[in-house]
This record gives sequence, structure tokens and C-alpha cells, in this order.
Amino acid sequence: MQPPVRITITGAAGSIGYAIAFRIAAGDMLGKEQPVILQFLEVTPALDRLKGIVMELNDCAFPLLKDIIATDNPAIAFKDCNYALLVGARPRAAGMERKDLLAANGAIFAQQGKALNEYASRDVKVVVVGNPANTNALIAQRAAPNLHPTQFTAMTRLDHNRALTQLAKKIGVHTADIKNMIIWGNHSSTQYPDLSHAKIGHEFAKDLLDNTWIKEKFIPTVQQRGGEIIKYRGASSAASAASAIIDHMRDWTLGTAKGDWVSMGIPSDGSYGIEPGIIYSYPVTCKNGQYEIVQNLTIDEDGYHRMRLSEKELREEHAEVAHYFL
Amino acid sequence: MQPPVRITITGAAGSIGYAIAFRIAAGDMLGKEQPVILQFLEVTPALDRLKGIVMELNDCAFPLLKDIIATDNPAIAFKDCNYALLVGARPRAAGMERKDLLAANGAIFAQQGKALNEYASRDVKVVVVGNPANTNALIAQRAAPNLHPTQFTAMTRLDHNRALTQLAKKIGVHTADIKNMIIWGNHSSTQYPDLSHAKIGHEFAKDLLDNTWIKEKFIPTVQQRGGEIIKYRGASSAASAASAIIDHMRDWTLGTAKGDWVSMGIPSDGSYGIEPGIIYSYPVTCKNGQYEIVQNLTIDEDGYHRMRLSEKELREEHAEVAHYFL
Repeated sequence: MQPPVRITITGAAGSIGYAIAFRIAAGDMLGKEQPVILQFLEVTPALDRLKGIVMELNDCAFPLLKDIIATDNPAIAFKDCNYALLVGARPRAAGMERKDLLAANGAIFAQQGKALNEYASRDVKVVVVGNPANTNALIAQRAAPNLHPTQFTAMTRLDHNRALTQLAKKIGVHTADIKNMIIWGNHSSTQYPDLSHAKIGHEFAKDLLDNTWIKEKFIPTVQQRGGEIIKYRGASSAASAASAIIDHMRDWTLGTAKGDWVSMGIPSDGSYGIEPGIIYSYPVTCKNGQYEIVQNLTIDEDGYHRMRLSEKELREEHAEVAHYFL
Repeated sequence: MQPPVRITITGAAGSIGYAIAFRIAAGDMLGKEQPVILQFLEVTPALDRLKGIVMELNDCAFPLLKDIIATDNPAIAFKDCNYALLVGARPRAAGMERKDLLAANGAIFAQQGKALNEYASRDVKVVVVGNPANTNALIAQRAAPNLHPTQFTAMTRLDHNRALTQLAKKIGVHTADIKNMIIWGNHSSTQYPDLSHAKIGHEFAKDLLDNTWIKEKFIPTVQQRGGEIIKYRGASSAASAASAIIDHMRDWTLGTAKGDWVSMGIPSDGSYGIEPGIIYSYPVTCKNGQYEIVQNLTIDEDGYHRMRLSEKELREEHAEVAHYFL
């Protein structure tokens, strides 16, 4: 058996943390041959709850789970970690402006980026889930000059999976039958779920669909799916977010399927005319632990407009947090 | 790929249901080659919350998950099911006597047993998790005369895994290094966690331990672990219970490891002098989808006393619900 890898999860006592820890320990993320050590970071008031979760994880007797660390100290939580799942974030409280939210999270992610820079394994793969995810990822990245910028990503895989789900339901196929979905831009309601390259077998999905459905139903449903789930479940998406994190990290590490790609929020290199440096969701293929942007896709005018709109939002968020950058 | 199997989960919108559904859909219970159809049963007021969970499951785009049914009708929920996870139960409310609790659950499990009898696949494997689990399993079994009594089991695997955890921690080994743990009796505080046959390699665990630790620390800690977790987590064990259900069903279906056994609450055949018919936790080996009680284990006087004590509790529960039996 291989030596264990270290996986840091922040906000570990929250509902996404609770949903993901057991799946990782069961081998869902890195396979049944890869032992893991879980390193949990939480705020001090949540440490008791976190202890209860550690007890439950131990009570599962998972063969792959070699150790658990639970702490409120980033220097301990990020020590030698190979994977960092930055799930915890300050949620928007009543009366809080977007600016306040960005500021509250800016402080958290700057601190975590600094700790990653100092303590993480040099091969660490970082995914930011806590919102605003793309901008939080940028803040963490800028606080970690000794790591490579491409080691920092934001999660748009949940949006990607939600887009597959809506399209599959509409056409009457299984999500596994659809390839080449794309989420462009920010993990927010300005994201652009783009099915214009999606294929079912050799057929383009858009050839089976009415353009009105795509614009008036598909795109807004994916953009607003989170709110819809809260309406029914009475709580925000937890287990599906956890599952998307697992998908994101697994594909980044073990590679994407032949002929398919996935969506990841990654530092823009200027592809498709997007401002270099901002964390923007692109279609990517992964191989040998590296991702690469899918190039030369044709984008129609409406699509470009949507891509720019989401870019604009990210530039604005960027401007508001620039004082955190080194 | 094989044809999908149907898995019914009752109380599916509860915290154990939420923790288990995603793991089953990911292939943790029956492997990565076995497609599944999830059939959720909930009480009517929970159907909205259940719908939110169905949306989240769809949003995961699990390749193995072929369909989801969500209903408050047992006839639909149990239709053709190959696995029935009876998780939902009436919890003990303030001021409720044990008798009231048994009665409230008696009605639920008699109805579910009847539905299983009528609608389930003839090969259905049933595990009862909702408390009082052993007696609820008995009620369901008696309401299903057209199924074989051995198709009804109660879960003591969480206790089994908790016992492994305590012993592993004490000796300083991994739970995976320990074989032949036993939980005897009722899934309640009268259960008897028995490490007298447990081995680490070729060594008996008891030879490494002080008898006082076993009696004063190990046994009560395992018996009271559930309460201890509530104290820290502020909620009862959910993800660890879900994980134990997965272990129970996986081992029953796919077999136990060579040289090891697991604990399952099953209809007593009189082995070890226990009253035939009651659902009692025994050490069992599994092969070809069948379990078999491990015979001829030596039990010391203290052990027999504890086994009888748990049997006595089950007979008393039995007497209180006998009017539900056909």
C-alpha cells in the first residue's frame, strides 16, 4: 500500500465537512488503495463539535484512515498537507453588504494562504469552496508566493454537475451519457453554464433543444439551483457540494476521462480574452496531476457577452480585496 | 454492467438517511460495478425536505445511480426492493415511557413488515436500525410470513466497530489489525462487547490487557458511546451509523474476510442457549449472501451472565409487543 497523503479540510465541523470526511475516509476521492490522514481546521468554538465528528470517524473503523488531526491552528492543520479543501468561510449575515463579506473572508483566506505557503507540502493541490470562492482562492494564492499560482483553484464542479443534471433530465438520458459541458466564469449567479459543446454520443445536445429553453430555463435553473435546494431542504447544499469537491480533486489528481473535460475555477492565462490572473472557471482536461485549458472552442456572441459579464464581476471583487495581496 | 438493484431507505430525510444515500450512490456499499435505484420512504411532512435531498443526489451526477423514488407510501417504497434499510423510527419524546416507545414503533414496523411481505423482491435483505432495533426487526419479521425469518436483521455493527476502535486505541494498533470482535445481545446498553476472542496477528488481545480495564472501561465505553458522541457533537451518531449499515449490508452480501467475522442481530436458532426466535446479536461469517453463526466459542462465567442479561431485556421487549405478531 502507498504511504498516506494528508488532506486538510477547513470548516470541518460544518455540514459540507461532515458530508465529505466520511467519503474521503472510505476512499471515494483517491481510491481504495490510497491511505489518508485527515487534518481538520475549525474555529475555536466549534472544536467540541469537531471532536464528536472525530469520534464518529474513528467509530467507522475505516481501513484507509490512518490518523486524524483536529485543531484551530492553521500551522498544524496545513502541515505537510497534499490536498487542501478550503470549505469554511464566513457566511453572509443579515444586513451584511457584499463588501463586508469580501472583507471578512479576505482576512480568513489571506491567513490560510500564508499558512499553506509556509507549511503545506510543495505539491499541495488547493480547492476553495467557501464563498465568494473564486476571489477567496485568489486571496489565498496571492498570500502564498512560494507555491505555484496554478496550485490554487475554485470549485465550479457543483455547477457543472448541476448543468449535466438539467440537460440529462430534459433529453431523457443519464448524466453519464453527456460529455463536454462547460461552466464559465465566477461561482455565482453570473456564471455561464454553456451546453453548446455538449454531446450525447456523436450528437450535439443543442441540436436537440430549443434555444428558448436553453436561455430561459437551462441557464437560470443552473445559476439559481442552490437557492432552489434551500427552499426544499431547508438548508444549503451540503452532500452534493461534498461530492463535487471529491469529483474536482479526483479528476485533477487521477485525470479526466478520454474525450471529456470538466470545469474548474483556475488562474486565467488570458485564454478566451479573460483577464490574466483572475480565478475563472474554464473547461479543462487533467493528466498527471496537471490541468490544461481546452482551447479553440467557438463561442457565439451571446456566450461571449455572458463570459464578459462574469469576468466583470470578478474584476470588481478583485478590486475590493486588492489590499490583501502581497 | 449488472442490472440495478433496488435499495429502500426509510426515514430517508433524517440525518442517517442523508449520510447514507450519497455513499450508496457512490458505490460504497455494493461496489463500483453495481448500479442502484434508491427508493425513499418518509412521513408526509418530510416530503419537501426529501425532495431537496433527491435534487442534491441528482446534482451529484453519480454514474451508478439509475433512478430515485421518493414517497410516503410503503407499497411504492418497498416495491421489488432487494435491500431494505429500516432507519426511520419514532424517537423517544420527553415524558415517553419505554412502553409507549415500543408501541409507537410497533405500529410502524408491523406496517413496514407487511409491505415487505407483499411488495419486496423475494431475495430482500432487511436491516433494522431504528430503535429499539432488535425488537423492531422482530415485529417486521413476524408481519412478513412469506419471507424467510433470516431475511430480517438488526444492526449491531456500529457497536462492533466502536469496540474495535476502543481496543485499537488502547493497544496502539489500527482497527484493521484486529480480528474476531463480538457484540452479543441487544443494541442497547445491555449489549455485551466481548473482546475475549479478539486477536491482533496471532496474539489474543486479552493477553495484552488488564481485566479491570476490560470490565470498567472497555465494556461501558462501548455501551455508552452513543451518548458520549451526542455530548460533543450536539446530535446523535449519523455518519458513523450510516457507515455501519454499509458495512453490515456489504459483508452480508459480498462475504466476510477470511479468518474474521462480524456482529449482526439475527433470529436466534438457540445457539449459546439463547431463546430461539428473538433477534440477538451474534458473531457471524457471511458467504454467498448468507450468514452463519460462529459456533463453539468458549464463554466465561461473567460473559454468560452478560449474555443472559441482554437476552432477558429482549424477552421483556418481546412480551410488550407480542400483540403485534401475526
